Amino acid sequence: MDSQFTRIKGGVGAPQGFVTSAISCGIKNPAVERLDLALIVSEKPCASAGTFTTNRVKAAPVRVSQSHLRKGNLRAIVANSGNANACTGVQGIRDANAMCDAVAKPLKLKRSEIGVCSTGVIGLPMPMVRVEPKFPELLEKLGPKNGPDVAAAIITSDTHAKEIAISFDLGEHRVRIGGCVKGAGMISPSMATMLCFITTDANIPTESLRKGVLECVESSFNRITIDGDMSTNDTVLVLANGASGMPSARRNSSACKQFRAALQFVMLELAKAVVRDGERVTKFVTVDVVGARTYLDAKKVAEAVCKSALVKASWNGGDPNWGRILHAVGYSRARIREELVDIHIAGKAACIGGLQATTPMEELRAAVAEPEFTITIDLNQGDADYTMYSSDLSPEYIDFNRSEYAYWKQARKDGLV
Amino acid sequence: MDSQFTRIKGGVGAPQGFVTSAISCGIKNPAVERLDLALIVSEKPCASAGTFTTNRVKAAPVRVSQSHLRKGNLRAIVANSGNANACTGVQGIRDANAMCDAVAKPLKLKRSEIGVCSTGVIGLPMPMVRVEPKFPELLEKLGPKNGPDVAAAIITSDTHAKEIAISFDLGEHRVRIGGCVKGAGMISPSMATMLCFITTDANIPTESLRKGVLECVESSFNRITIDGDMSTNDTVLVLANGASGMPSARRNSSACKQFRAALQFVMLELAKAVVRDGERVTKFVTVDVVGARTYLDAKKVAEAVCKSALVKASWNGGDPNWGRILHAVGYSRARIREELVDIHIAGKAACIGGLQATTPMEELRAAVAEPEFTITIDLNQGDADYTMYSSDLSPEYIDFNRSEYAYWKQARKDGLV
Repeated sequence: MDSQFTRIKGGVGAPQGFVTSAISCGIKNPAVERLDLALIVSEKPCASAGTFTTNRVKAAPVRVSQSHLRKGNLRAIVANSGNANACTGVQGIRDANAMCDAVAKPLKLKRSEIGVCSTGVIGLPMPMVRVEPKFPELLEKLGPKNGPDVAAAIITSDTHAKEIAISFDLGEHRVRIGGCVKGAGMISPSMATMLCFITTDANIPTESLRKGVLECVESSFNRITIDGDMSTNDTVLVLANGASGMPSARRNSSACKQFRAALQFVMLELAKAVVRDGERVTKFVTVDVVGARTYLDAKKVAEAVCKSALVKASWNGGDPNWGRILHAVGYSRARIREELVDIHIAGKAACIGGLQATTPMEELRAAVAEPEFTITIDLNQGDADYTMYSSDLSPEYIDFNRSEYAYWKQARKDGLV
Repeated sequence: MDSQFTRIKGGVGAPQGFVTSAISCGIKNPAVERLDLALIVSEKPCASAGTFTTNRVKAAPVRVSQSHLRKGNLRAIVANSGNANACTGVQGIRDANAMCDAVAKPLKLKRSEIGVCSTGVIGLPMPMVRVEPKFPELLEKLGPKNGPDVAAAIITSDTHAKEIAISFDLGEHRVRIGGCVKGAGMISPSMATMLCFITTDANIPTESLRKGVLECVESSFNRITIDGDMSTNDTVLVLANGASGMPSARRNSSACKQFRAALQFVMLELAKAVVRDGERVTKFVTVDVVGARTYLDAKKVAEAVCKSALVKASWNGGDPNWGRILHAVGYSRARIREELVDIHIAGKAACIGGLQATTPMEELRAAVAEPEFTITIDLNQGDADYTMYSSDLSPEYIDFNRSEYAYWKQARKDGLV
């Protein structure tokens, strides 16, 4: 599928008719200059769609963006890193609204045309005193070439910014999709995971865009897990402004289908990038479950294996431990029969019919010594399948997440707590 | 409740009419002398009851013991550590049967009167060549004082043997309950977790014993978690031989109720001991969920919090991170309202109405610096509650579980793989 799309530069700024900017407000640490406030603006009205965390504890910006997306079409997104504005009550809603207003007024947009996103530490008030004075600078910097800065401004514990842009033809028109994503911890399936912004100059009607986004999220971001923890802030927002000049794609037209395939490609690349850059991750593991009785059985098996602490520890150790994989298959609550299960690691048989295969241990060890490999679990009971993308769990991950006390100390310095 | 029971010595050997023994076969490593084969025998017929893993991948001894328990009453238990005899197919069943036969014949019992249990590495054949020649020694050593040896023989990654024995009066008769337990990894609720053997000289009819065991397991072993991984081998077996001389307790009599309270006490003590001795565990955390709309809502919240990698990492770091607790409450799928949730740590308010409480951070940090503390989560929506016992997750846990390659190397030396 890759070959039909041309990779281009520019991230979310690559599509026509979008301007972006990113600046540093010192949200995490006033002493360190690091991009942490970003803005994406379409010069034209957009179709828009999004998905949000299914966590019942939702950050203030998630609540605000959900409401804005219901009211109509978004045309701009303002986002910060360093503070999640989650578990912050009424003041959090006020702060999220203030962030929308701060960009809406100068841009002559309605508050409800702004999407707002935050990511970072939970339970501390937004340091608005440092953010609000910076909005004139943020607006002034708006331009067509700052896409990579947006990608850099939304990362937290990520080790690097993650973005993509592609161009391809829809009929006679060349269109572009750009995207960026952040997320390295609190990554678990069953929702739109982490922050992801996608822009496109394709002309896709809102209804088609919504349907496409739901489908593409289901088979990309909802299929990754790092630590099994579902965030309070996860958001995917997609803006389509039609600035490529193509006529509006009709519902279910081949242009719509081609666009959806491209969106799927972009989202899956970004989702995989999140796993590869997971907190203290050393392995990228694709888990293919095949031969299940139903899609749901396949999904349960994939999720149990991808979330098992013991399986992930063995991947970290380069141990081709099919026994631990099979034990997670067993407790997945899927309908499985132990004596039918085959497990292949990088195409090499590790377990056949629930028993150890004859592949020499050295070959299996060599396979899991690679930084990326695929585990195929064949339940031999039907023809449903499901694929997930997971990582190992390292001692360094736990060590990295032991304490957020430094953030509290900074918040106290700021007089926020 | 503790006060009505007198703690005594002797573990599973403490009740009247039981003889036990334990020896070393070198199952893990022929070069190291370590107890790894144990036997518990009642001199009289017993009522018996048990619970087993709900994992669909069940070890051979689980399948054999389940079948024996259905056929009638067990009178002896043979158990080994070092090899789980799991994912071992037909040969595994043969080996488990051979272990039963090896003790049944000399004891003049039927094979179906023997319970058999194994714990250790998954997917490697039982090294019967080292086990079988040792049965005469195992039988010869049978005596009333070897209870502590049984507790020592069933441990694997546990740092120490875990046992208990109590005596108390049922009417005019003094009776005893003894128990031992192993389990330090692959510990997760929703079944009878790990291996646990309990003996008693109380005279309890089989039906009452079965009902009591199910109830007591539900509120003890099913409420603990270390790593969220459910084993293939988990088994609880209880033998009641009536050797105290008390008359058979009638169903629903006060003697039955008193016995059940004592059994509950024993199981909960053993369950907590498993968590305290969890692999590389540094904290024992009681999570009390109160004010839930239903029991199931309370349970979902407790399980989500107790299994969250990020919450457990923060406990490891001594970080009173209520935001991570609340985020796990949110994704638990329980019916909760963020703005109603109160979280107390060791009785100190950390979060009130979904927002940070005013307790000084130093007080909260001091509370989670303790090796044991309680987190109380009040959903303020009803009067259902649920308690779980959990541990932190340490970098050392992951490091400890990175590889089981040493076992494979030994198995190859033994010509088993």
